[in-house]
Amino acid sequence: MISRVLAADLSRHVGGRVRIAGWVHRRRRLKTVTFLVIRDRSGLTQVVLAEPGGPPEETVVEVEGLVTANPQAPGGLELTEPAVGLLSEPAEPPPFALYRPSVAAALPTVLDNAAVALRHPRLKEVFAITAASVAGFRSALDGLGFTEIHTPKIVSSATESGANVFGIDYFGRRAFLAQYTSLDAELGFVGDHRDVMAVLREAIAGMAAAVPETGVEVPEAIPEIHFTEAQELVARLSDEDPRGEPDLAPAHERLLSDWALREHGSEFLFVTGYPMAKRPFYTHPDPARPGYSNSFDLLFRGLELVTGGQRLHRHADYVAALTARGESVEAYRDYLAVFAHGMPPHGGFALGLERWTARLLGLPNVRQATLFPRDLHRLTP
Amino acid sequence: MISRVLAADLSRHVGGRVRIAGWVHRRRRLKTVTFLVIRDRSGLTQVVLAEPGGPPEETVVEVEGLVTANPQAPGGLELTEPAVGLLSEPAEPPPFALYRPSVAAALPTVLDNAAVALRHPRLKEVFAITAASVAGFRSALDGLGFTEIHTPKIVSSATESGANVFGIDYFGRRAFLAQYTSLDAELGFVGDHRDVMAVLREAIAGMAAAVPETGVEVPEAIPEIHFTEAQELVARLSDEDPRGEPDLAPAHERLLSDWALREHGSEFLFVTGYPMAKRPFYTHPDPARPGYSNSFDLLFRGLELVTGGQRLHRHADYVAALTARGESVEAYRDYLAVFAHGMPPHGGFALGLERWTARLLGLPNVRQATLFPRDLHRLTP
Repeated sequence: MISRVLAADLSRHVGGRVRIAGWVHRRRRLKTVTFLVIRDRSGLTQVVLAEPGGPPEETVVEVEGLVTANPQAPGGLELTEPAVGLLSEPAEPPPFALYRPSVAAALPTVLDNAAVALRHPRLKEVFAITAASVAGFRSALDGLGFTEIHTPKIVSSATESGANVFGIDYFGRRAFLAQYTSLDAELGFVGDHRDVMAVLREAIAGMAAAVPETGVEVPEAIPEIHFTEAQELVARLSDEDPRGEPDLAPAHERLLSDWALREHGSEFLFVTGYPMAKRPFYTHPDPARPGYSNSFDLLFRGLELVTGGQRLHRHADYVAALTARGESVEAYRDYLAVFAHGMPPHGGFALGLERWTARLLGLPNVRQATLFPRDLHRLTP
Repeated sequence: MISRVLAADLSRHVGGRVRIAGWVHRRRRLKTVTFLVIRDRSGLTQVVLAEPGGPPEETVVEVEGLVTANPQAPGGLELTEPAVGLLSEPAEPPPFALYRPSVAAALPTVLDNAAVALRHPRLKEVFAITAASVAGFRSALDGLGFTEIHTPKIVSSATESGANVFGIDYFGRRAFLAQYTSLDAELGFVGDHRDVMAVLREAIAGMAAAVPETGVEVPEAIPEIHFTEAQELVARLSDEDPRGEPDLAPAHERLLSDWALREHGSEFLFVTGYPMAKRPFYTHPDPARPGYSNSFDLLFRGLELVTGGQRLHRHADYVAALTARGESVEAYRDYLAVFAHGMPPHGGFALGLERWTARLLGLPNVRQATLFPRDLHRLTP
């Protein structure tokens, strides 16, 4: 059997017989001829059957045929004199047409049928962009000397708050599930959060460089604004006055993003110095203004993409921070153990990968950038 | 403040003043002088204090000093005329000495104190090897056109068997936790399991190439033996006769590995064709011998490192396989949905990353290659 050729490589074989394999993307039956468009992971190939008939859409086939130039065929090539072999026949038709330029079905239907829907070139492309972005992130951090690690998904205490903490019966003990894959980095020996922001800028630039087709640009210096100035700006630019509030509302983040694009030509904006009251206990305060923190958010096209900052590093500071919040130090014993043994000033950040892809591609719903989303109402597929 | 220099880069600064930062790895106090060995992520630097005293082990310090050649110093260089600044002081001494060439503590003590123990150069090195291996695995598969994806950690049904399936209360619904990070690959349009084995060989070769310091070699063609021949070989080479058993015992895997090394000079051995009875329902049978499967294990230094094979691809075959095992087809409805819509012949494998590293470095316990192990008795740190 001759070895398989991908659609994208067909032009190297004009005038020769090749074997392709893939799904029947589209069957168009005319009176005396049938066009089969075959979809593989690289693209589409038109096959001309000199007869009516041919297998229906989503049948898995292999086709041997002659690579023939035809200006009217997609890509200028088609397979003629084909021999079609059936590899796998669908038991039922797809839940929606996969051959149209975009999927017409509503999002819940797409998600219910994700494993089939992801055959669609447009939907699959989202995850090629995601994979390239992750590769760019890794490449940038590898270049800075970071080490990639794999952390446990089961944790003994719920360090993050709220509704998305899932309890597990772990051999009779209570455990919690660490939720949401995110691209995290932690680094030691920082001066303050600005060193973390510098690493983040490199990581984002690496991601952008890996997806040049999206056209996203990361400035050499991402513009920054302190939380208090951001609130003043919001008060000036809108008819709302958020001063005194401990956090920014989503509408205010959008307004600030628009401002950064207008004033600085940047789709990215660092907001620094969020009030300590709204940050986790491990956040390092700003030594000059202890009510504010050495933390930051990175806004991208109106949305918070990254949260990060400098963490506390002294054991005594952790004990004081927990006590001030009325938390039990004993409950955090494992968490604090490492800080009893000399920990350098350090910080880090967490980047929401799906948010990145969704923002990058203008997808209105972050689930469209999630391979198999899990939410309040969705646990399958 | 002058910018920080790593220990590994010190030789570029001989005769100049530099700033280093790290942990006090070792303090040796003599009568009139104190030697501090400072550990950073790149290595060790000796600092000479012209006075008794100096901070205790595991204090986090920064040191400005003159880079001075001294043949008696580790690496031939030391810092003299130092100014030592304290960045973070330990609240208590480390649970065991970190400055000795190897950690003397028992494994449970090491694991209980993992975040501190991993400061030890020898223990930390394990995870540098792991990170490099993963990079090599990715690089090989990227080169073959694979796409990296991130799958959900919460699943609606327990497709793997046994004691390591953890139930979750997911917003009032029953869910399960997909356990154990492994390096998985799946590929379509295979002839049979041999195409999967060919990809696996490339992935393993990529991993080996990324850790040349370990000296592991992957043959161009990894030797193979069918399950039935493996049993006959075991019967011939030992005083046991496993023929008729549906699986290989660990002792037999070691014996087969020894044989492959002796006869083929290979530390890797494929065992193919395991009986269908011991393989998951989705395994594709060998068309020529339906009691045996198109599956394989890859043994590495006496241990099963990888399991893989060809999967069923026809919906009707899945229904038949589940029915024959007395399983409810309805319980696998979500799992089977994609097979109703045309699925190509495909297969894949799962490689245990910690097993790889442990075997590679001769670590007797796989937990030594696990950053923060989770087992029956261990849920922290």
